[in-house]
Amino acid sequence: MAKQETIRATPAKGTRDFLPKESLLRDWATDKIKETYRNFGFTVIETPALENIELLKKGEGGENLQLIFEILKRGDKLEKAISSNGSQLNLSDLGLRFDLTVPLVRYYANNVNELPTPFKSIQIGPVWRAERPQKGRYRQFTQCDIDIIGLKSSFAELDLLNATSSALVNLGLKGFTVRINDRAYLQELVKYFEFDELVWDKVFISLDKLDKIGLAGVKKELPTSNSPEKTEKFWDLLDVYCNLMNDTSCSGIEQFKKLEEAIPQEVKEAGVLTNVKELVEAIEKHNSDFKVQFDPTLVRGMGYYTGPIFEVSVEGYGFSVAGGGRYDKMIGKFLGRDVPACGFSIGFERIVTILEDQNFQVPNSNNLTALIFDEKRDSVGPVMEAFAKLRMDDLAVSLVPKRKDLKKQLDHLKSQGISKFCIFRGDPQNLEIKDLD
Amino acid sequence: MAKQETIRATPAKGTRDFLPKESLLRDWATDKIKETYRNFGFTVIETPALENIELLKKGEGGENLQLIFEILKRGDKLEKAISSNGSQLNLSDLGLRFDLTVPLVRYYANNVNELPTPFKSIQIGPVWRAERPQKGRYRQFTQCDIDIIGLKSSFAELDLLNATSSALVNLGLKGFTVRINDRAYLQELVKYFEFDELVWDKVFISLDKLDKIGLAGVKKELPTSNSPEKTEKFWDLLDVYCNLMNDTSCSGIEQFKKLEEAIPQEVKEAGVLTNVKELVEAIEKHNSDFKVQFDPTLVRGMGYYTGPIFEVSVEGYGFSVAGGGRYDKMIGKFLGRDVPACGFSIGFERIVTILEDQNFQVPNSNNLTALIFDEKRDSVGPVMEAFAKLRMDDLAVSLVPKRKDLKKQLDHLKSQGISKFCIFRGDPQNLEIKDLD
Repeated sequence: MAKQETIRATPAKGTRDFLPKESLLRDWATDKIKETYRNFGFTVIETPALENIELLKKGEGGENLQLIFEILKRGDKLEKAISSNGSQLNLSDLGLRFDLTVPLVRYYANNVNELPTPFKSIQIGPVWRAERPQKGRYRQFTQCDIDIIGLKSSFAELDLLNATSSALVNLGLKGFTVRINDRAYLQELVKYFEFDELVWDKVFISLDKLDKIGLAGVKKELPTSNSPEKTEKFWDLLDVYCNLMNDTSCSGIEQFKKLEEAIPQEVKEAGVLTNVKELVEAIEKHNSDFKVQFDPTLVRGMGYYTGPIFEVSVEGYGFSVAGGGRYDKMIGKFLGRDVPACGFSIGFERIVTILEDQNFQVPNSNNLTALIFDEKRDSVGPVMEAFAKLRMDDLAVSLVPKRKDLKKQLDHLKSQGISKFCIFRGDPQNLEIKDLD
Repeated sequence: MAKQETIRATPAKGTRDFLPKESLLRDWATDKIKETYRNFGFTVIETPALENIELLKKGEGGENLQLIFEILKRGDKLEKAISSNGSQLNLSDLGLRFDLTVPLVRYYANNVNELPTPFKSIQIGPVWRAERPQKGRYRQFTQCDIDIIGLKSSFAELDLLNATSSALVNLGLKGFTVRINDRAYLQELVKYFEFDELVWDKVFISLDKLDKIGLAGVKKELPTSNSPEKTEKFWDLLDVYCNLMNDTSCSGIEQFKKLEEAIPQEVKEAGVLTNVKELVEAIEKHNSDFKVQFDPTLVRGMGYYTGPIFEVSVEGYGFSVAGGGRYDKMIGKFLGRDVPACGFSIGFERIVTILEDQNFQVPNSNNLTALIFDEKRDSVGPVMEAFAKLRMDDLAVSLVPKRKDLKKQLDHLKSQGISKFCIFRGDPQNLEIKDLD
């Protein structure tokens, strides 16, 4: 055959093909997580990948709003948009979801009359962000969220944390640390230190980097507060943070109390540390899978958090594998009345990275037998008869044509997870099954 | 709280939210299908939702090419595209996949060195088409494909058909009819009757509607052939088709032979009916789940089919639930050498429609116990202790706050599939589990 002009076969930039082995691991991990969450009373729901673009842009998604893949309008609507004389062309009316929380909140408001209270949801699915492609960062990746809507108290956070640690344990991981902070505390703090409301976000972003860039680094980039005197006190507080946060010699609650001492009395009296304290104590007492830490510099990117926030890390890996927090003010924007809500997300792609790094093998469950036939010599009837006969014995059977080098083929079948084989020799009544080893 | 201005909560036009009950059914059906296909030696793979737009537009997707959701270019690329003076603005570089076959072919070419021969793949995932929304037609829907790449002979078709009927049986359905035709036969036919190559597609589309619009209808819209004499003979052939096709009194192979008699000798001698005949015979003999029919008017929309094509219907429902065919010339466009390929797709949304229509109940598998506590009265510690205690006995436990009307709440929990409950009365050592009925 003459060489044809070929079409490029690589996937679009920043996206991935998953080989059978990779999909097997991803499916296994997905199933484990779902099964665990179902055993805590959560139920799977699904929202569409496409949402109206206005919804996505109002979603308080922080910097993700810059990363939305927008869908081009079509037909008349597109023509009208192009021929309009505005300075800004309005070319899209839909976009791909960039997370699962914004769609969940819309979903809850849309279906509130058909959902139980509290509503405990599982969502596992792809999200899309137009990130600059780089190692470990993709334009399509899977998120894996649980949320509890309609529960005001810390029971929600504890239920989510228990379910998450169970899922991580069931995935074969261990050595988890959960860091806790509270957005209400952070807010009270910047108020007390008299930072202008316009620079709060900048203060938070700096604070979040304290462990990476140190006190000197934070000092360099932090906006000045309206009270020079209090600024000095702020540095003192951060200095105490730096010294105490990495002290792992004491329990979580002891460490919390030490850190608490450094916090200005007025801030403490606002009651913004009550939840954190209760959570540190309860996790320490009732969830032996977690080591717990109060981390007053933890911020998390999303603008919608209103209460306790969390991040979970696994021993030996320098990134978080799960995180979440409370967002009590988001549903009100759709429903016209506030409903408390709290969510937790497992970083699915990171879990897969860890499992692959640990060379994890998915348990072989279906015990497949290869029925090897000769595509040229054998006719359809007898092979089909043999196939039906093997399946009658409740076997899982894969129909496989014989290759030239049988030994190599058998090795190959084994590497695909096939455990037995049967070479068809023309007679469906005479089938010998052998182990592949 | 003052009434807020709210954001619209409905999903984007033509897309759907799935309630817990709907997702449960969809997940159950997905798992059943995957499990069945794995037991036939197929393996799950996954491709990204986004593909380069050139790939999608070259994909021989028939009328689906008009329905691609295109992704707007971003940043500099978008500005450049808008300011270019061409008559046609080139505003997108990516698009959402409209089926799973075009991506599979790209995937195979991209990963050929890491895949076995033959390669037997499972793909279950969403596809997107900008359809005009109407009842039962959505802009995002799930497809469910198996394909065998690298097998030339009818073994591929039979393996796919066996796997498909098994999956349908495992979903609890019965009464399947598979209709078979061959694109090679259709092509030979229009050549013989001297239709111009430019109108072949139109002839096929008309032919496909014979059962709906009848011979008179087809006559009205069929393009004329270059030989008036042969046109008359074509009508005669279609007339025989009409009379014989619905004769279900005889076996598939008997019916095939009757229909075959009416086909011009020259067409038969081209050998284009050999595959169909072999398939009708083999299915009739070796797959008792299928009633099999040769349907010389079956066409199927996609432009890429080259050999036998199939459609499966279920007794009592007036639509096909599965279909597929051979596409031996598609991989060559990517790889530069042809590789035989054959695929079969279950209409997932239609299966779900049938299961819902039959009021199918997903078997309750996790036997959940509700631990009912009082969110205001109970403190976190003892409830968590009770929760841990129940879980130690290997129970699946859902933490649920007490509602005002306990009886109503218990009914509601039962309707959510919860089977037991335990009301927390302050003492974690004293927990009484009762059945919910």
